Parts: sequence; C-alpha cells; structure tokens
Amino acid sequence: MRAYDIIQKKRDGGVVDEAELKFLVDGLLSGEVKDYQLTAFLMAVYFRGMQDAEVVALTKTMLHSGVVVDLGDIPGVKVDKHSTGGVGDKISLPLAPAVAACGVPVPMISGRGLGHTGGTLDKLESIPGFRVDLSLDDYRRLVRDVGCCLIGQTKEVAPADKKLYALRDVTATVDCIPLISGSILSKKLAEGIDGLVLDVKVGSGAFMKTRDKATTLARTMVAICAGMGKAVVARLTSMEEPIGSFVGNALEVGESLDVLEGRGPADTIALTVELGAEMLVLGKVARDLDDGRARIRRSLQDGSAREKFGQIIAAQHGDRGVLDDRRRLPQAPQKTDFVAGARGRVVAVDSEAVGVASLLLGGGRLRAEDSIDPRVGLHIHARLGDVVEKGQPIATLHHADRGVADALARLQKAYVLADPAVPFTAPSLFVDRIAG
Amino acid sequence: MRAYDIIQKKRDGGVVDEAELKFLVDGLLSGEVKDYQLTAFLMAVYFRGMQDAEVVALTKTMLHSGVVVDLGDIPGVKVDKHSTGGVGDKISLPLAPAVAACGVPVPMISGRGLGHTGGTLDKLESIPGFRVDLSLDDYRRLVRDVGCCLIGQTKEVAPADKKLYALRDVTATVDCIPLISGSILSKKLAEGIDGLVLDVKVGSGAFMKTRDKATTLARTMVAICAGMGKAVVARLTSMEEPIGSFVGNALEVGESLDVLEGRGPADTIALTVELGAEMLVLGKVARDLDDGRARIRRSLQDGSAREKFGQIIAAQHGDRGVLDDRRRLPQAPQKTDFVAGARGRVVAVDSEAVGVASLLLGGGRLRAEDSIDPRVGLHIHARLGDVVEKGQPIATLHHADRGVADALARLQKAYVLADPAVPFTAPSLFVDRIAG
Repeated sequence: MRAYDIIQKKRDGGVVDEAELKFLVDGLLSGEVKDYQLTAFLMAVYFRGMQDAEVVALTKTMLHSGVVVDLGDIPGVKVDKHSTGGVGDKISLPLAPAVAACGVPVPMISGRGLGHTGGTLDKLESIPGFRVDLSLDDYRRLVRDVGCCLIGQTKEVAPADKKLYALRDVTATVDCIPLISGSILSKKLAEGIDGLVLDVKVGSGAFMKTRDKATTLARTMVAICAGMGKAVVARLTSMEEPIGSFVGNALEVGESLDVLEGRGPADTIALTVELGAEMLVLGKVARDLDDGRARIRRSLQDGSAREKFGQIIAAQHGDRGVLDDRRRLPQAPQKTDFVAGARGRVVAVDSEAVGVASLLLGGGRLRAEDSIDPRVGLHIHARLGDVVEKGQPIATLHHADRGVADALARLQKAYVLADPAVPFTAPSLFVDRIAG
Repeated sequence: MRAYDIIQKKRDGGVVDEAELKFLVDGLLSGEVKDYQLTAFLMAVYFRGMQDAEVVALTKTMLHSGVVVDLGDIPGVKVDKHSTGGVGDKISLPLAPAVAACGVPVPMISGRGLGHTGGTLDKLESIPGFRVDLSLDDYRRLVRDVGCCLIGQTKEVAPADKKLYALRDVTATVDCIPLISGSILSKKLAEGIDGLVLDVKVGSGAFMKTRDKATTLARTMVAICAGMGKAVVARLTSMEEPIGSFVGNALEVGESLDVLEGRGPADTIALTVELGAEMLVLGKVARDLDDGRARIRRSLQDGSAREKFGQIIAAQHGDRGVLDDRRRLPQAPQKTDFVAGARGRVVAVDSEAVGVASLLLGGGRLRAEDSIDPRVGLHIHARLGDVVEKGQPIATLHHADRGVADALARLQKAYVLADPAVPFTAPSLFVDRIAG
C-alpha cells in the first residue's frame, strides 16, 4: 500500500476503505506516511468529501490510535452530550449533574475554549480547586461512584486526532465536515459511552453559520455513531444570540448554579431540559421525551441535581462551598456598561463578536497556549426582540485590567437595533432534530 | 503574510498574487513555510487551477530561485525547443544541430527519461564519451563558439522547482497543468533563451492523452512565455504511435544520424523540419515557415547539420567517430522478433506500453535513480495503417539479459490489429499550432 495511491484515489473522487485510512493514520504516527502527504490527502478530502462509511472508518482508526475507556462493568446506559460550541454555552454544567441525578451515568471528556467559544473545562476550573486533569482510573471510579465525571482530554485519548488536527490547523483544512465529525467523535467515543446526544449549534455564533451546513454535520455525526453501534440523536439549536444571561467562565458557573436552583434564564433552562430529556431516553431511564423533560425539571426543582453537582465538585477536588456562597467564585474588580446609543429593538446579534468581546477582556484564548482570566465576561441584559431606550445598558462588562475599549467596539457592531414599530419574531431555539 | 491565508485563498478559488507565491516558494526553501503546508496548497491548486498571471508569477519565482544564464553577449536570437515527452522522441538530436547549422544559436538544457518516455540526455550519453554535465561556463562558451550546447539541469537551475516537484511526486499533484507548465518553463527559461518552440504531445504515448488537455497545457505555456517577454509558439503533435523506427537510446542516436544524412523515417524528418522551421522564424533567420522548412531541409541534405552535430559531439567530449562508424555506438547482443499472431492492419498502438516495453528491456528507468542500458530497445517495422501477415515481425527487440518476456507481453497488448478490409485513416502528425 502506498500513500500516493490513496491520495490519488481521493483526489479523483474515489472511496477510501478502512485499511487505507488505517494505513494513512497509523503511518502518520509511525512516520511512514509523511506529514506532507497527509495534508495533500486532507485537502483532497476538503474538495471531494467523504461518504459515511469513510468517516466511520476514519473515526474508528483515530479512536483506536489511543486508549478507549471501557465502562462496561458500570451498571446503566452511559450517555454523554456534545455541543459543537457556542457563546454562553454553559449547558453541560447544569445538564451533567441533572442527568446523573436522574440515574443515567454521564462520563464526560470535554475540551477547552478556543476563539470566540468558551470551553467546559475552563468554566469548571473557575470553581476554586476544581481539577479536570484526573487520571482515567479516577474518571472510571467517579463515573461509577458519583454517576458523573467531567475531565479533559488526556494524552492517551485519540493521539492520531491530535496530530491530524494540528496539521489541519495550519493548512486551512479544519472547515471540512467529515474531518470535523471524525475529530469530535474519535475523542467522544473514547469516553466509554453507550449513547450520545449531539447539540449542533447553528447561527451567527456557531461554527456552522447556515442550517444546511449544520444539518450536514449533524447527519454525518449521527451516521458515524450509528455506524459504530452507539445510540445517538442530534438536536440543531439556535446560536443567533448568546445562550442565557452570562458569557465568561465564573459568570457562567453562577448562571449554572441558578439553573440548578430552579431559576435562571428561560433558554438555558429549556436547553438543559430538552437535551437532558434526550439523554434520559437514550439512557433508558425515561420512556419518552415528555417523561424525560418532567424528570429533568423535577431534578432542578427538588435540589437533587444541585446536590449531584456538589458531589461532583467535591469528588474533583473543588470547593463545594460555592453552592452556598457565590462570592467564593472569582469576581472581576470592575464593571462597565455597554449602553444603547439610541432607542431601538434588538433585531440581530453577532454572537461571534460577543464571544470575541469576552475573549478580549481575557475570558477566552486566541491560541491554545493562552491563559484565561476566569473572572471576566459579560452580563447580557437585552435579548433578541427586546426594546431598549437610549442610554439603557444592553450588557455589563465584568473586567479587570484589559480589553474594555476593544470589547465595547465589538459589542457596538454586534448589536443591531431597529425601529421598534417594525414587527419582529425571534428565532426558535430548537431548529431540528435528527435521530439515529 | 501567513502560509495559512494563502492556502485558504486558493482553497476558496481566489487568485494568489506574485508576493504570495514568492512567500510560499522562498519559504519552502528557507523552511519558514512547511512542506505540509505547501502540499496542501498544491492540492488546492489541483482543484482550483491558476490564472495565467498566477502561473507567470509562479514560474518567475521558481526561475529566480536559482541561476538564470545570461547569454546577452552572444550574437543572435537564442531559441530552444521543448517537447513534453513521448516514445521514440529523438527529435532534439537532429533538430538542435540543424537549427544551429542554419545560424540560430540553440542553448538546450534537457532532462532524463522517466517512466515510458526517453530523455535527450540518456540518448546523448549513449555516444561514447559524450558529457552532459558541463559547467554553466562551458555551456555559455559552447553556445557562443559552436552555436549549440546540450546539457543537463545543474543544481544551480531552479532549485525551488526541484523541491516542489519532489513534493508533487509523492502527493499526486504532478498531473496539474499550471504546475506542469511552471515546472517546465522555470527550467527552460533559465537557459538564457530569447524564444522557445513547444512541442506538446497528444495521444496514447503522451502525458496529455486528450486534445483538450494538450491544448490547455500549450495555451498555458504560451501565456507564461509571452508574459515573460519570450517569443513562443506551440505545436500540438500526435503521439498515437512511437515516433520513427526506433525506441531506445543508442538506437535513437542511430536514427538521428540517418536524418542528419538526409535519410530516416518520414515522421522523424517531418517533425525535425517543422519544429526547426518554427525555431528559425523565432530566431529571425527565416522570413516565414516555408523559408524555414527549406533551410532545415537543405541543412539535412548538404551535410551541414551532420557536421554541426560532429562539432557538438567533439566539444562535449564525445566520440565523433560514430558519425562515420555506427558500430562505435553500443550494440545489444541479442535480437528477438515480435511477430503478428494473425494477418491484420495496425489500427491502434498503445505507445505508452511500447515505451514501457523498452523500459523493461533496460532502456528506461522507473525511478530517477535507476541506471539504464543504452544498447537495448525496439526496432519498429509496422506503423499505424500497415497490414502485416501472420508471423511477420511488427517489431524487433534489441536486448541483453533481461525483460524480453515482459516486453513481448506488453507489445502483444499494445498493438491492435483489425480486418484489413475495413477502411482506416492514420491520424495527422500535426494536430494544432498555438502562437504567442
């Protein structure tokens, strides 16, 4: 087998089989296949795409390049949720304990934030002491004993994906649905899950800006999971404005605690309930989505989800005192309002720009090696459809020593106000559902 | 400037400017741009193509990555010919001395054979003592004193092309007209020429199998030369059967000597006359093509072209005695006929397979580092349209110790015989002409 022939086959629109993909991916790690051959292949994939069977084979190969956790000895159907990344997307934080509290084990390996999107790990780490760098043994133990564990990707998981992603990142081949799908799922499926709920974001703050692209990504990922024998369902959800009222790490933990106390913004609650219901159905704890929704809502109302979050925080070395005293979360020293320049209705939000505004305050990272400031971010007051008066705050910046002017400039462009007399309908939060 | 942005631009169908191409090519040599970024770019070019201005810029950049010979102090308009490679294509050997004998200096830097095609350098080296590895100083001196010099590409010429080609060769990006054009011309234009005649082969034995592709290649190369201020004309010529009667290195030298003595196969003569006429017109020695044809024919008849070849051989350390005694050329120890299995008319020849048959006897190389046997090859008796009787030789293999059975098997498949009663028209040798 020669890398050349595989590149040529894909270049000419052919279908590459599992043995060929394995040859490429294993060869990349062993050095037998050169980086410069792989990037030519990746660019050919960018133009020619991949059939479902090819993406399944690619995912399998990358998955098995590293450790695949076996949770088979833990009772129950293990289910995780993956979101393709958004602005203000803290859903994993209330969701994982709520689902675990309802009896479905949640083994969750998450990523860090990059660019305009935040990451679950960064948010969790704003809880004093919280550790996401547990060993896979600890991870297995906590899924069994606590019913949930929230950690970061270890070096043992899908090393081929790591190398492939690094090459894609410098060769303009990241934005390619088969490669995105393979990358996400080769990491997710290493968790030892039986089922996966996919939250595919679509809109101004999502990686997939159009419904067509988001649908293709969702269908591809559903096909891969199904092809690998996993229960799966994908939800397309709107990312036309930031989720909830807060963007920023400690601020989003605060909002998550609100949800776990039966309060919080309607959209954050709705996403938690809906995705949680899907997880309970896949986890065979709920008989249908309505039953699932009721169970998740109850766990948020009766404190059981909040209690589960406390257990998770304690098990992962965090200060569970934050549940009772929010002031234990890091606080930004200063606040500055971003106010409306004129009266008007919020008719469009460039959520990506809102995410960048938070990044500029120090709440995100431009490059993987950047450090973040957990304290900073945005408190958003005006949502799509709201009418604001001139001088009324649209958002409040929580900041420390940097980025305020730049962040304000971004927000200025991000919010489009229009004549309140013109009718406006806010987009639905739930766009589509694609079952396995 | 970042390689990423240039890759992305080309990926998305944009036009890359000269500064960007220079950044990529210079960066490749300096190491600032990584091999794996360049191959992704090359694959994007494969899919998106390049506009003429881009190919001109690429060619310029690769050309100026090395030495560009200046022949400005040598009187006359310096003209070379480049053929895109065929089977039995020994035209450079009679052509260069004929054109030089007519008063147009011919500075010619050639390549070696690879795969099914032979190379001018290999053919010349079958003349005992002939050296193609002269220095650029010697090259300049011989163009001035002898009117012609035939050498190989030195390391100083277009090093960027060498590196780029090596990467294309292992990433299935060789077969891409803008890249082919840039590669050919960045080397050719380093010769110090004022004009160039392009012989673009089309047909079963050519790299361009279809007239469309050959036309695109010819137009691209003509556009590049014109864009760089060079006089240029391209001829599309048929490669539906091997050129002339011999394939193989010393055998082709023999046929070239025939032509220089006013004999030889009609097609070899016709190509020499036609391409020579074009060179004389570009070289401003002939007033038009008819005048050019007459001058070339005269040089072949009156012995002046043969005498010039003798001077070239002597100047390049070869044994000019081969002109008077063909037995000084290497001879294969054995001959075996390839005979017709039944009576029939030759209606198709897979010239590439004929080239491979010669390669299998040792007359060509599969990889650049292979050595070749100058003695071996094929003497072809039956041409397209000829009727052969059962048992009559279609070709005679000149061979040594290897490859006979394999070569015979290839020839068996290469020649298609049909009922002589069915009318047949052989393809025209001259397919098209594209002027600058």
